[in-house]
Amino acid sequence: MASEGIIGLDLGGTFLKYALGTPEGELLYKSKKPSHGKESRDVIFNVIFQAIDECLAQASKQKIEVAAVGCGTPGAVDFDRGKLRGNTPNLADWGNADIRTRIVKRYNLPTWVDNDANVMTLAESHCGAAAGYKTVIALTLGTGIGGGIMIDSQIYRGTHYAGAELGHITIQHDGRQCNCGGRGCIEQYASAPAMVRHYMEKTASATQVADTTINTEIIFARAAQGETAAIKTIDETCAYLGAALASIVNIFNPEIIVIGGGVAEAGEDFLGKIYNELKSRAMEPALRDLKLVPATLGNDAGMVGAIILAATMNSKDR
Amino acid sequence: MASEGIIGLDLGGTFLKYALGTPEGELLYKSKKPSHGKESRDVIFNVIFQAIDECLAQASKQKIEVAAVGCGTPGAVDFDRGKLRGNTPNLADWGNADIRTRIVKRYNLPTWVDNDANVMTLAESHCGAAAGYKTVIALTLGTGIGGGIMIDSQIYRGTHYAGAELGHITIQHDGRQCNCGGRGCIEQYASAPAMVRHYMEKTASATQVADTTINTEIIFARAAQGETAAIKTIDETCAYLGAALASIVNIFNPEIIVIGGGVAEAGEDFLGKIYNELKSRAMEPALRDLKLVPATLGNDAGMVGAIILAATMNSKDR
Repeated sequence: MASEGIIGLDLGGTFLKYALGTPEGELLYKSKKPSHGKESRDVIFNVIFQAIDECLAQASKQKIEVAAVGCGTPGAVDFDRGKLRGNTPNLADWGNADIRTRIVKRYNLPTWVDNDANVMTLAESHCGAAAGYKTVIALTLGTGIGGGIMIDSQIYRGTHYAGAELGHITIQHDGRQCNCGGRGCIEQYASAPAMVRHYMEKTASATQVADTTINTEIIFARAAQGETAAIKTIDETCAYLGAALASIVNIFNPEIIVIGGGVAEAGEDFLGKIYNELKSRAMEPALRDLKLVPATLGNDAGMVGAIILAATMNSKDR
Repeated sequence: MASEGIIGLDLGGTFLKYALGTPEGELLYKSKKPSHGKESRDVIFNVIFQAIDECLAQASKQKIEVAAVGCGTPGAVDFDRGKLRGNTPNLADWGNADIRTRIVKRYNLPTWVDNDANVMTLAESHCGAAAGYKTVIALTLGTGIGGGIMIDSQIYRGTHYAGAELGHITIQHDGRQCNCGGRGCIEQYASAPAMVRHYMEKTASATQVADTTINTEIIFARAAQGETAAIKTIDETCAYLGAALASIVNIFNPEIIVIGGGVAEAGEDFLGKIYNELKSRAMEPALRDLKLVPATLGNDAGMVGAIILAATMNSKDR
């Protein structure tokens, strides 16, 4: 008998990453394609279909029977229906996209769809940095700040799948206006664009020239070389994150917090600084035994999580 | 056969409230005694024992067989062991008190102990303002700000029972030092003492005399009479609460938020103002269908919740 495989899709504004894997999340084949996020919904679906076709061909070659499809996507996802709920900022025509229906119609494969941060949380909890833990908070620091909540080994989505927006925790009640419509959200203080903005504010006053090529990698590199403005920017980012994480720790008293995304890959020193800020703020009983660790699955997290999601749900349905 | 009754205890720094009730939380007899919170642990236990004796005598009179005891107490509670975990600020010698063991030893009655805000949340969710809802956030505004989280009809306590500290959500990253060791917690901005402080700051500049008899009732009364400083104080309190609730709503996307405690009893207009602030901040999908309501059980909530807790746990154990 052929062994069982699962297809995992990780849709982003720029790329669709896709993989064929074992139900345990081991990747047997992976690739990526431009997602054409700015084009029409049908163009994006065609990219998805090409990816599935490619995975099915690989499965056939490897004598693997594909049992299900999992998909992570930006935006709030109606998990029970497998479709988007409202719009997603980086995929212009993707609002309310009915992902499950379209995939099932074409391939007749059981399909599950979830928010990309939830899928990443699932991946890190099953075979990444938080493997073996039941109460997990995951935070991805990138262009935005995404969040995932796992309670008693279950992803927490909220009443209308609109929870776990950990990037939109207030850290400054009269703070900066946020894209979400709120004010003073941590995303406005510790995302990659926020770091760049803070750094530019500091350096512009010294040189009077704003450097538009700055990114967080450059800031971390300059800090490593001892540049004051870069070091200050990173320290401030850690202080802001410490404030948001203090709220998270006092609310959830989690076992472990996983930090992923481009900004977090700056390494252990960054996490150490964040932990020190958190420790100076959060309540002592909630901090006891808490682990704050970097994500370990990197760019694979979305694909692995989509596979774990589909494998888990599919085995429940049998 | 005698009908079944449960004893519910609600321990506070000033009073122990206690009741005999039905397993559904209907109170058949209730009373209160000074808890002697500043005295030794044995003095407090003696107050508890007198209360239980009184309830047992009442039960006997009413031909009710007492099946279990429930107790709400300030502080972090090791729910599985029925004992305090660490200290409680308003009960000087109550740290690590082993409530279940002492009650079971003396009465041989199954006993459950939980944090007072959790017990209040349970009461409001079973037979109060949030009856019939599964995902509930409760906030008590008083000398401090307490919180309770119910997810899928279960109280969420955190890994080491140190979660749900909703009074210690950061709303100002560089804000006021909090008693919890943190900084900028909502408790420092919207508790009763914080309201009084804000009001005094506004009026002292006008009169140069600080009035030490001010409390939140007076502030609400003066606001009703049109006094600018009082109105401003209330508006600010609502703005601060809106910021904390925006974090809560973006994290949990709850069905309903229940606001209780002395400050909240100021009524619907206060809650309306809080809701408007919340609405201007929280993410739209998470706000959809959200209910923000006042607690309805008032001073009985602790006793009712302790009874519901013990009745629920006792029926599980059978």
